[in-house]
Amino acid sequence: MINKEELLMRAAKPSDDALKYHPFFKGKIQMVSKCAIRDMNDFAIWYTPGVAAVCNAIAADPELSYEHTNRANMVAIVSDGTRVLGLGNIGPRAGMPVMEGKALLFKYLGGVDAVPICLDARNADEIVNTVRLIQPSFGGINLEDLEQPKCFTVLDTLRADPAIEIPVWHDDQQGTATVLMAGLINALKLVGKRMDNIRVAMIGLGAANVATVRLLVASGARLGQIIAVDSKGILSRNRKDIELAQDKYPDKWLLCSEGNEDGLDGDAGDAMRGADVVIGFSKPGPDTIRKEWVANMAKDAIVFPCANPVPEIWPWDAKEAGARIVGTGRSDFPNQLNNSLGFPGIFRGALDVRARTITDEMCLAAAAEIAKCAEDRGIDDDNIIPTMDELDVFPREAVAVGMKAIEQGVARLTMTREELFEKAERTIRASHEMAQLLMREGAIAPMPADL
Amino acid sequence: MINKEELLMRAAKPSDDALKYHPFFKGKIQMVSKCAIRDMNDFAIWYTPGVAAVCNAIAADPELSYEHTNRANMVAIVSDGTRVLGLGNIGPRAGMPVMEGKALLFKYLGGVDAVPICLDARNADEIVNTVRLIQPSFGGINLEDLEQPKCFTVLDTLRADPAIEIPVWHDDQQGTATVLMAGLINALKLVGKRMDNIRVAMIGLGAANVATVRLLVASGARLGQIIAVDSKGILSRNRKDIELAQDKYPDKWLLCSEGNEDGLDGDAGDAMRGADVVIGFSKPGPDTIRKEWVANMAKDAIVFPCANPVPEIWPWDAKEAGARIVGTGRSDFPNQLNNSLGFPGIFRGALDVRARTITDEMCLAAAAEIAKCAEDRGIDDDNIIPTMDELDVFPREAVAVGMKAIEQGVARLTMTREELFEKAERTIRASHEMAQLLMREGAIAPMPADL
Repeated sequence: MINKEELLMRAAKPSDDALKYHPFFKGKIQMVSKCAIRDMNDFAIWYTPGVAAVCNAIAADPELSYEHTNRANMVAIVSDGTRVLGLGNIGPRAGMPVMEGKALLFKYLGGVDAVPICLDARNADEIVNTVRLIQPSFGGINLEDLEQPKCFTVLDTLRADPAIEIPVWHDDQQGTATVLMAGLINALKLVGKRMDNIRVAMIGLGAANVATVRLLVASGARLGQIIAVDSKGILSRNRKDIELAQDKYPDKWLLCSEGNEDGLDGDAGDAMRGADVVIGFSKPGPDTIRKEWVANMAKDAIVFPCANPVPEIWPWDAKEAGARIVGTGRSDFPNQLNNSLGFPGIFRGALDVRARTITDEMCLAAAAEIAKCAEDRGIDDDNIIPTMDELDVFPREAVAVGMKAIEQGVARLTMTREELFEKAERTIRASHEMAQLLMREGAIAPMPADL
Repeated sequence: MINKEELLMRAAKPSDDALKYHPFFKGKIQMVSKCAIRDMNDFAIWYTPGVAAVCNAIAADPELSYEHTNRANMVAIVSDGTRVLGLGNIGPRAGMPVMEGKALLFKYLGGVDAVPICLDARNADEIVNTVRLIQPSFGGINLEDLEQPKCFTVLDTLRADPAIEIPVWHDDQQGTATVLMAGLINALKLVGKRMDNIRVAMIGLGAANVATVRLLVASGARLGQIIAVDSKGILSRNRKDIELAQDKYPDKWLLCSEGNEDGLDGDAGDAMRGADVVIGFSKPGPDTIRKEWVANMAKDAIVFPCANPVPEIWPWDAKEAGARIVGTGRSDFPNQLNNSLGFPGIFRGALDVRARTITDEMCLAAAAEIAKCAEDRGIDDDNIIPTMDELDVFPREAVAVGMKAIEQGVARLTMTREELFEKAERTIRASHEMAQLLMREGAIAPMPADL
């Protein structure tokens, strides 16, 4: 057992390293050729005059942009830097290191080419318009680190826009919720409870929990048994503040009016009383969720305090108070509910079938497959979900997502499960091998030991 | 000597190859890691939690975005696809293969990471706004293939905007003009004429020639001795159509009111009579410029018919009519005035000193250095300018551009000529070696012979 100070000290090491190593490499991603260049004469094929024929072909049939360019594998990571990690509104320039890191993960884990595009945007409209303008160049858009309620407006507007021809995804909503659902699926298996028969307390109602509610309900959980809590207390029909702002916060109002069927009022402790599951995406702990609240939960309680960098309650405190399964956002505790398990494989699948969108059903297919990856190698209370090292999760997720897209009619390409797996697995493996080749041969310098 | 049909047939080969090879590689550029990844634990440095320290550092000092991210080497290639090559307005999707080709050249020749961003933009404002929004992510912006007058509005607006902190460059203006100036400098040396003592006829007054006029005058050419011709004839004080639209076409009106001091009127033939130099960026030939017009030029005439894919006059016809030096845009004739000699080295230099802009003086410094590269290895009438294979041109240009930026106070970094050369040369060499490594080791497939 470690305390907060030790944990924060432990977290200081990556920070120190980050400050040393970032300026050494001056960036985490770069461009490289994807096509062969035998000599300068090949530029007559890749550039003028030959390229004109390819341009004309796309002009005649715009779908050919997926064949003649890298669009089919290229995603834009779009942020305005208004809610970067737990750092708040630090702006687009300061948000860049996160988006570059995300691009690195996209490529390394999913074989997806991703470009960080941090915007000096003042409002949701400017983000929406920029995505509309840049979409011809990309096969998908990953929104990231937008403050709320802007994040909901941007995502909902773009997903509802029939002129948007590519998937638009907000990782802090769908991505986080997908991975959480994967953990929950396995946790419920272990405690022998069913999704349609649980009471869930949600602490904090930002991007992640709003999306989680949607996936919970789509998975069979009863909305009436979801008790959500924001900074002002439990969401119920008595929340006049939300009723008055229901246009701006439709998800919150739904939870007031159709969630919480028992009409509870009060604080997080009241919401958790008797709950089977508590999901926290609220303010960093360790005292946001109290031990006595956990003690009052149902038997075999599942506790997911996901605030970063410090969970709403220490895992050992939750366990001591009676929780059976605890998962957090941190890699140094068991059961890390880690976004990076989701987006690389999900986009891999969406891109491989050239999906027009990523539906909630595709998210749930991904969650089920992530859960199954862990189940296949064996799960227990401290091992409900794969780690990033279990690399088979990514192509398997890609297959689940791609097949669901085909089934739902949102894919441009149709292929078999086997073809899809082969394609995803090959792309991801090639990406790994390329990164390793560049390091082995010194094209990427080794980490200097003496900085 | 070959005729038009043979030339077009010869041009058909790259087109056929392009249509076969583009779908084989499915894109010409991709992302790869720039930093070392020893194992998954390093993502604690490159992503959460470590990256937060780097974000905070940039939030405190935004200039650190150049140290902690790849911004210092990353350029956006922005187009709306309204004037792609000679193909006209084919739209952003169809423009992508050109922008990807350009990104390939940026990296291969200049070591510059470049992202193609083709916009579904309806007007100049949308392009200007997008550049303003995305600038925190990039070290420079390369505008490309915009129709006129939009291209002038976009470039002039962004260059004049004090909120723009990075160079904005329109390659079809500054890039084309810079390379043309390099050719002209050496051609004038060979014929023994001086820049301040020549009469120049400009056929066509699009992006390239408008920028060329500016560089000519900045190099000492007399504006009064520049006779420009557009589709309606010679630009003179009698051109009421331009006088009435002078707000929209200020460059054209300048040529009417201060160029053409002898008050010529008429057609291209009239403009060329007695001229020392003719520069064509007009409609593809081969009969746009007639032999008899060349015959009426001054002794030792310099003829640059740069229309693509077919020059305004065949080189052999121009020579037969008395031209001494002929340069075109094509690689299969002598003296190719090729944009690719410019932008990779110019951006290399601008990025290496973190320039805030690329001034006309920086363009002229690049032109002089390109010319000197050719002079150093020997020039003659059919060898006035380097080819793309003469790779030393790129770091030398970078030095010329970077030193001029430092001298003019538009550079964020100061360094010596030697340091600048070493940096540019190392970056470009690393880029070459990386591309070659990936091909040698099969990470990029070889060109298939049997497609």
